[in-house]
Formats: sequence, C-alpha cells, structure tokens
Amino acid sequence: MNNDNGSVGLVQTKTLTFAHPPDELILESGARLGPITLAYETYGKLDSQRSNAILLVHALTGDAHVAGYHTHADRKPGWWDWMVGSGRPFDTDRYFVVCSNVIGGCQGSTGPRSINPATGERYNLDFPMVTIGDMVAAQRYLVDELGIDRLLCVAGGSMGGMQALEWAIRYPERVASVIPIATTSRLSAQGIAFNQVGRRAITADNKWNGGNYGVKPDELPAEGLAVARMLAHITYLSEEAMHAKFGRRLREKERYGFDFSIDFEVESYLQHQGESFIRRFDADSYLYISKAMDYFDLPRQYGSLQNAFAGVQAGFLLLSFSSDWLFPTVHSKEIVRALMVNRKDVTFCEIPSPYGHDAFLIENEAMKRIVPAFLNRMASSGRH
Amino acid sequence: MNNDNGSVGLVQTKTLTFAHPPDELILESGARLGPITLAYETYGKLDSQRSNAILLVHALTGDAHVAGYHTHADRKPGWWDWMVGSGRPFDTDRYFVVCSNVIGGCQGSTGPRSINPATGERYNLDFPMVTIGDMVAAQRYLVDELGIDRLLCVAGGSMGGMQALEWAIRYPERVASVIPIATTSRLSAQGIAFNQVGRRAITADNKWNGGNYGVKPDELPAEGLAVARMLAHITYLSEEAMHAKFGRRLREKERYGFDFSIDFEVESYLQHQGESFIRRFDADSYLYISKAMDYFDLPRQYGSLQNAFAGVQAGFLLLSFSSDWLFPTVHSKEIVRALMVNRKDVTFCEIPSPYGHDAFLIENEAMKRIVPAFLNRMASSGRH
Repeated sequence: MNNDNGSVGLVQTKTLTFAHPPDELILESGARLGPITLAYETYGKLDSQRSNAILLVHALTGDAHVAGYHTHADRKPGWWDWMVGSGRPFDTDRYFVVCSNVIGGCQGSTGPRSINPATGERYNLDFPMVTIGDMVAAQRYLVDELGIDRLLCVAGGSMGGMQALEWAIRYPERVASVIPIATTSRLSAQGIAFNQVGRRAITADNKWNGGNYGVKPDELPAEGLAVARMLAHITYLSEEAMHAKFGRRLREKERYGFDFSIDFEVESYLQHQGESFIRRFDADSYLYISKAMDYFDLPRQYGSLQNAFAGVQAGFLLLSFSSDWLFPTVHSKEIVRALMVNRKDVTFCEIPSPYGHDAFLIENEAMKRIVPAFLNRMASSGRH
Repeated sequence: MNNDNGSVGLVQTKTLTFAHPPDELILESGARLGPITLAYETYGKLDSQRSNAILLVHALTGDAHVAGYHTHADRKPGWWDWMVGSGRPFDTDRYFVVCSNVIGGCQGSTGPRSINPATGERYNLDFPMVTIGDMVAAQRYLVDELGIDRLLCVAGGSMGGMQALEWAIRYPERVASVIPIATTSRLSAQGIAFNQVGRRAITADNKWNGGNYGVKPDELPAEGLAVARMLAHITYLSEEAMHAKFGRRLREKERYGFDFSIDFEVESYLQHQGESFIRRFDADSYLYISKAMDYFDLPRQYGSLQNAFAGVQAGFLLLSFSSDWLFPTVHSKEIVRALMVNRKDVTFCEIPSPYGHDAFLIENEAMKRIVPAFLNRMASSGRH
C-alpha cells in the first residue's frame, strides 16, 4: 500500500506558538488556554495566490506526521502516506498540504502533559477540557500564520471528519471545500459508552494517580492505556475483517493451552496493538481527546443539524464505509440530508469495504479515484 | 415484564457434591476435578415417568436462580422469571425445571474461589481450565442424581445455548430436545477479542495479584471487574437500543460539565452496571468462564459442524434476534444448515428485536408464543 514512488521523502515536524497571555484562546468551556504550541508538518509549496492549501486533520490518536519519513531509518511513513505525495490524491506537485497535532494531544502540541507556564509543572488534570471546535480554533492560528486566507480543502477521517465539519461551520469564508470521512455530526451513545470504558480502564490503573504520573516508563499508567487501546481497536475493525484476518486461528500452538496465556492470533494481534500504543501515546491525552469526541454534537450546538449548516459555503464530499459500525453510513447520510435541505454542494459516497472504521486508512483504490476528482472540481470551480 | 401471577414463589438453592477422589471428573484438558459441588434449583414436579424434566442452562454471569424469590424481601426474581412458572413458557404446572450454576462459577458451584480440599486453600489460578463440555459433563451428574434418564429439553441463551448444543451432541440419548438461543457453534474472533480485553482489565488491576486476592471488599479487583463488565454490557445491547434508551441525554445537568465527571445518561447507566456486578460476581470466575466461551468450537472439536451433529437425536429450536451483533443470526443459520444436512428435526426463528444480544432475557412476547408450542410438540411426539 505504501509505495515510495511519489513519497514526500524526509520531512520535519515544526512548531508554532501563539495565544500568549493575556491573549489566550478562549475555549468553548469558557476557560482560557495560552500560550499554545501546535506541532505541524507541511508538504508541497504554497502557490503565489495562496490558493492551493489543504489542511489534513487527524483522528483520536493521530499526529502531525501524515506523510514521508522523519529519518532514513524510519520503517513506517506517516499515517496517511498513500494519500499525500507526488501523484497521490493530495498531490504535493499541485497542493500545499498542512497537518497539525490537535490541542490536547501528546505529539508536540500543547496538551495535559505540557508544562503549565503559570506553575512550571505539568498541567495533568488542570488542563482545561478542549472541544473539537477548540482544536479547529487553534488550527486557525496556524493557517493565519502560514498566510492562507482560504483553504482549498479540509479533510480527515473519524475525529478528523468532525474537525472538517467544524471548519466549514465556524469559518465559512475560509474553506472552499471539506472532505469529512467516516464521521458523524454527533457521537452515538454506543460511541460514548466505548470511550467511557476506555477512560475508566485508564483511571482504574493505580499508576494513573489522578493524572499526576511520572515520565519514566514504569511510572506510566500503561496497563490501563493498553486496555483502552485494545478495546478501541476492536471497534475500528469489522467483525468480517477480524474473521478474515484471524478467525479462530491459534497462535503458535496446535491445541488450546488450557491456561491464560495467548491462545488465538487475534489475542496476540490486539496485545501487540496495546503494547505499541503505550510507547507512542499518553494516557491523559487519551482522556481529553476521547472526551472532546463525546462532546461533539452539532445539532445540540446549533439547535439542529440543518441550522448548523445554514451558513456554510464549502463544497462537501462525504465518504463512509459499508462495514463501519462505529461511524456507520447512516450518520453520514444525516449530514448529507441536512446539507441538501440547505441547498449546499454535497457529494456523498458509501465505499464498499470489509475493513470497518479503519477503512479510511486502508481503502486506497476507491479514495484514489474519488478524492482527486473532487479536489480538481473544487480547485477549478473558482471557490478558492 | 415480571408479573408475579404464576411466579414459582419462594425457592431455595440446593447443592449436590460428587466426583469425590479418586473418581474425579476428567476434564477436556486432561486435568481432574473433584469433589465438585453444583448449586441448583428446581421448580415444579418430576412426573411418575420422569419424562417432564427441563434443564435450563445459564449465560456467562448467570446462576442457578432462574425463577422466583429467595426471600420475601427480594426485590428482583430470578434471571428468567417470566419464562418459568405456572402458565409460563417453561410451565411448572406441567414441567419439572432444573437449573444449576456452572462449574467455574462463583454462585455456589465449584470454581476458582472454592477451597481446594487437597491444600485447604482457595484454588485461585490453580483451578483447572473448564470447557463448555466440562460444564455439561458436571450437569449430567446432577441429572443422574435427580433420576432423570432423558431430559425433555435443555434450553438457554448465549453461553447457555452452547451448553444446550453440547448436551445434544454428548448425550444424544438423554435429550429429547434443545433450545439454543442467541448462540453460536464457535465464538467469533470479535467475541474472543472482547473477552480478552475484559480479562486484561481484570488482570491489570493491581489487587488481582495473580488471582490470589483476599475476600474483603477492599481486597477485590473490583475496578478491573467493573471495566470488564461495562465493556461486555455494551456488546449485549444494540446501538439502536442504546440510542433509544439513552441517546445523548445528559445526566442531571443542563450543559456539559467540561470535566471528567459523568455527563451522559449512558455513562451513568454503564457505571451502575459495573458497580452492581462487582457485588455479585467474582473476577477469577470471569476469567475462567469467558475462556470457556473462547474455547467453544464445535467444528474444531468434531472436524466439522456437520460431523458434530451427525449423531444427535434431539429436536432443535434455534432462536436468534435481529439486532444481536455479538451472536448474530448468521451463526444460528450455520447450525440450522448443518442440522438440515444431517436430516435432523430443526426449527429456526429469527425474532425481530431492537434489544441486541440481551433480547433473550427481554423478548417475552415472541418467546411466549414460540417456546410453549415447540415444547408441546416435543412432549407429545414420543421423543421423551
């Protein structure tokens, strides 16, 4: 899937710091946050009219590193590498692509484990709650700093799709188009429930210590975070995909162990997912960002979904995946309906896929056909 | 739903102890277990031909207390009360109904927290792994002791359905009919994955201590067990049911709390499920019984599902529920097909229901129509 032909190659993560006191960002909760640092990467070149910029927005555990490699020794490229590069859907020969780590995150942007300049200590649970809208408000500073008046597109899957929707609603004049993928206008009760159990697993870890854990590996609430990740990972896959990939195959044994060691391939896979996750992600960030997803509710915020979209100017491409049960197609269709009632430019496609919610990171054939055609139409429509 | 008209009234749990050394039960793993105590309840009267006995078999966290009340002060009856009583589907005016707590359990039957007579200490993780087949083998001792040569029916939902299938296969001459409900011939990869995460939540609790925890409330790995239960509970409900029951309604507040306290009704509900569960269930039992479900795989055990059913004599009533995504209808249909290829007497019904897997404990109207008719046919067919 990750063919290096067209790769953006070696890239660096940069940072921007803004909202210095007394001009902090005022969050949806009413709390103030500043200074704020965003970690971000860019690929391609901003054209002279500054009209070719695309902002990519990441999901719960993503980061600014969408594409390319940080070092020659990197074995894995960025999280959406096949989407970004020369000749790829977000074509860096043509577009200037930007991605930043969300606030509340743990991969270079200001989050709960950052140092609170007012105290010289980590925020931990003193960090204010942030929302999807707050994440987008922070991204606007970055877009301003880069000199971009109007983004050609904001695109992302899952929580990235929530951010894309917020961009279109909050800053209608600054977004020519959005591509919300495998997303929703409000997290379902089931989605809230899964998030809650993940958070409970973290806070139940005695090393979590009210959020005030140390930084050494053995001081981290790693067990709780692993459980949260393993649980979430199940919801990112379809039953069909798990059946095809693992079924009930045993792991390096011919018969059941009749003990509590790993018996099945699927157990080994999930355990690996948990273990690799705790090396790259922070428990307090998981609490904050999952809560931001729980709070996302456009109908509540704007009275109705139809009202939410009344003022949008962007063209919309909504994508969903047939086997995604966490953000099912029906949620995308609700958005499509509300946009149509508002007579907006909206294109929708449910992509047939066995891969569940994770399909937005996998289904390259379909997305390589659909996304460039939409971007091309948006770029040539004079919207930008 | 639980109308007391027809209730079996006050009932008592009894016990039977058997498989005394050196005649222990030889488990599927090859390990020996004995003595074994089963906690059980009976309702109704065994007729003079001993031909009217129905064995009910429970799900993961069930117990022997299917129906009626243990004391006048009980606020809740047994777990399938609306199914058992005078004029109810398992009609105690007509049938002799038996239910026992499975081995590995924690509600009166021998399980990991029982005293190992060889050491005078609790088994904890020295308890041997038990399978669904082992649970059924233990039940056979009870059926023998009650003087029942041939059961009119074995019925149960979820893991109870697995036991019903094992009864028909292991003891073909001793079962006139079975009613496996919302079940499968082998747990799915997704089912194994959810069970694994639940177990990991328990073993991650520092109070779990390798299974050797104390008996006082503050010595129990209650947090881990609560997380396991909350997770499992989500899988027992459909998204549709959670949406209808809770949606995104806030819990006793008008606006978001912007902190990590409970915001949503669904969170409050799940938290309550976790808290009430830890008062009635044991963590080590949860490990053992969930593992028994993981191991259940009739095609593996018998070469194929068709082979598994080659020798069965029972009549089958398979029931599934349209919104059950943990034990979906397609799993019941596989069983139906394998039985039909073997030219067995099989009836199948997918009951339309919004309640997900838990529907087998809820859908009383449909089951009150279907189950008595099937039992009547079985009772009058001369099978018993």
